[in-house]
Amino acid sequence: MNIVELIRKKRNGNELAHHEINYLISAYTKNKIPDYQFAAFLMAAFLKGLNKEETSCLTESMINSGKTINLSSIKGAKIDKHSTGGVGDKTSLIIAPIAAAAGIKVPMISGRGLGHTGGTLDKLESIPGFKTDLNLTEYKSVLKKCGAVLIGQTKDIAPADKLIYSLRDVTATVESIPLITASIMSKKIAEGIDGLVLDVKTGSGAFMQKMNDAVLLANTLVNIAKSFNKKVIAYITEMNQPLGNYIGNWLEVFESIKILKGEIKNDLLELSLVLAGAMIFLGNKSSSIEEGSQLAQEIIANGKAFDKFLEIVKLQNGDTAYIKNPNKYPKSKFVQEIKSKESGYLKQINNYEIGMASVILGAGRTKIDDKIDPKAGIIFYPKIGDKITKGDIIAEFHSSSKEKINEAEEKIYSSLKFSGQKVKKLKLVKKIIN
Amino acid sequence: MNIVELIRKKRNGNELAHHEINYLISAYTKNKIPDYQFAAFLMAAFLKGLNKEETSCLTESMINSGKTINLSSIKGAKIDKHSTGGVGDKTSLIIAPIAAAAGIKVPMISGRGLGHTGGTLDKLESIPGFKTDLNLTEYKSVLKKCGAVLIGQTKDIAPADKLIYSLRDVTATVESIPLITASIMSKKIAEGIDGLVLDVKTGSGAFMQKMNDAVLLANTLVNIAKSFNKKVIAYITEMNQPLGNYIGNWLEVFESIKILKGEIKNDLLELSLVLAGAMIFLGNKSSSIEEGSQLAQEIIANGKAFDKFLEIVKLQNGDTAYIKNPNKYPKSKFVQEIKSKESGYLKQINNYEIGMASVILGAGRTKIDDKIDPKAGIIFYPKIGDKITKGDIIAEFHSSSKEKINEAEEKIYSSLKFSGQKVKKLKLVKKIIN
Repeated sequence: MNIVELIRKKRNGNELAHHEINYLISAYTKNKIPDYQFAAFLMAAFLKGLNKEETSCLTESMINSGKTINLSSIKGAKIDKHSTGGVGDKTSLIIAPIAAAAGIKVPMISGRGLGHTGGTLDKLESIPGFKTDLNLTEYKSVLKKCGAVLIGQTKDIAPADKLIYSLRDVTATVESIPLITASIMSKKIAEGIDGLVLDVKTGSGAFMQKMNDAVLLANTLVNIAKSFNKKVIAYITEMNQPLGNYIGNWLEVFESIKILKGEIKNDLLELSLVLAGAMIFLGNKSSSIEEGSQLAQEIIANGKAFDKFLEIVKLQNGDTAYIKNPNKYPKSKFVQEIKSKESGYLKQINNYEIGMASVILGAGRTKIDDKIDPKAGIIFYPKIGDKITKGDIIAEFHSSSKEKINEAEEKIYSSLKFSGQKVKKLKLVKKIIN
Repeated sequence: MNIVELIRKKRNGNELAHHEINYLISAYTKNKIPDYQFAAFLMAAFLKGLNKEETSCLTESMINSGKTINLSSIKGAKIDKHSTGGVGDKTSLIIAPIAAAAGIKVPMISGRGLGHTGGTLDKLESIPGFKTDLNLTEYKSVLKKCGAVLIGQTKDIAPADKLIYSLRDVTATVESIPLITASIMSKKIAEGIDGLVLDVKTGSGAFMQKMNDAVLLANTLVNIAKSFNKKVIAYITEMNQPLGNYIGNWLEVFESIKILKGEIKNDLLELSLVLAGAMIFLGNKSSSIEEGSQLAQEIIANGKAFDKFLEIVKLQNGDTAYIKNPNKYPKSKFVQEIKSKESGYLKQINNYEIGMASVILGAGRTKIDDKIDPKAGIIFYPKIGDKITKGDIIAEFHSSSKEKINEAEEKIYSSLKFSGQKVKKLKLVKKIIN
């Protein structure tokens, strides 16, 4: 096949055939197409788009670039959740044990944090001993034993995705809905799932800042999941403020423990109940999402959610002492309260900047090989619409460096806008697509 | 500067600033930007376009990637011609000596043939001994002595163009008017010209097959030439049939000799007089193009054009014996007359296929390192509108191989369409832009 002709075809806005997309992905993965030609193809695809058929075929080709996990030996519906990422988004840690306690099998392959958003793997690894690099045999074994497993991307799963993503990152071709969709869905489908709950974030702390883009991405993800015969529900949810109040790796584990023990009731709990309810419903353990959420609430109340979390941590080699008694966890050298410089109703948060403030404190990465500090981060109290008085404590910073705290403090102040008028609270779940 | 940000800027359809384009070209030429990033930039530029300002700046950056030739020590106006290329287009060989005989300085840097079109260098090199790889000192010396010089691209002139063109060729980003314009104009301006006559071909044998595209390219070329303060006239000319009757390297030198000696009057002579007239006018040796053409005609009639050609050939080391007595030149092993299989008025020629037939016979290249046979080619007699009777000789094939002749014969037959009705002759010059 002539690669220049394939680039030209997409450049001219024409639809590529199945065998043409298969060829592009398979040859690129085998290093038979140079990066410069694939980069030109990516830019053409970015600007001219890929239709549903092409996106589905791209996803399939990316799955076929590696192994697919066969989970048929494990009984029950395998349901996963994927979030497009945001600030303080730790629902995976909460809903995996809840859904597993409800009898769902949750095979969860997660990523690391980069930029303003955190990653589930980094959060889990803040638990001493917790192993996220299980091999496929261990992965299946943990899933079979306790109904949930949380690991990192393995090199066998959709290797094309890793290659293509690296190239997209350096050629300004990241923000393409078909390319994002194929990247997410190829990994999820190769995991061996029966169904998927999608949490597409929108707002200043989200990847898709605009509602329209988030809806388009959610629709595309749902369409592709369906084209692979997977059950799917997508939620568009609010990311104009942090989810919950804790941002940073151990801090987020801490908040998750509190939620799982029923000790906190906030937006994080609300969203976790919705997502867990949808997983329970997709896995046929309830007759509606609402009933699933009800069941999730009971599972928290009767202690099964927290017990399941302990079981997962133990099976993945984590030290459960810190889960049973989270206050034993070492604290950051510097813990500083941040007080509001203004009075008024909190009107707007630049949530991206909140995320970047936590990165400054040590909780995240700006480059892929940056080290992270598991203890570092922010406890951020106010929500949009809250009435705040000058001098009120709005946040608590945790860091190993006083300078970093000062730098992050500036970011926090400049990211908040106040109003003299009452401000409406934000609605958490903005849209459901299925 | 952040290259990903520059790619993103163009991808989003925004105008790049001067220093941004300068950086892109300078860093790419110095191997500081990898091919894959430049390929993504090229595709973004292809699909989102470059405006006049950006194209002018791109041209300037490409000029600055190498040396510019200073011809100020040579008296007189330096005027060149550039053609976008076609089948049988040998006007350079005719108008360079005519314009030089009229007192113009013609510093001509030409290319080689690739695909269905021939190249001036290959044609000149069919003359035994003719040297096209003069160094810059020899180049200036020949130009000073006889008023014209015809050489090939040197590695010092616009090296960015060569690099970028190679990448465009393999990333489906060739057919972009701003990129074509910068490629042409960077080399022409670096030559040290004062003015340029452009011959933009349109039709089945041309690079720009559609009239609209040819006009757009001509307008862009004229605009960019003007932005560098160069005098410029562009012609859009007919390429739905071969120019003149001879196609192939020595065959085209042969036809040029006949024209220069005043022995042939055809469309090739007509176009040569127009282009030479425009060069003479731009070089202030006539008060109008028409007067320039009149002067060109006189220069042919009084023998000065042919004498000047002999002088150029001699100064560039060519054997003038073959120019003085062209019938002495060795003939192809096989010379075969091709007879029409149909009767009627010639209505349409797939001129691209005529060019490709001459390539099959040995006159051209399909790959950059193919060897060419200087003797091979086609003498093609009919023009659109001619009345032809079955059995009339329509062409003469010259080749070293009988099989190639058979293969080329098929191409010729399938490329001609006849009509029972009278067919209008084509107008040679379709538009003038200046």
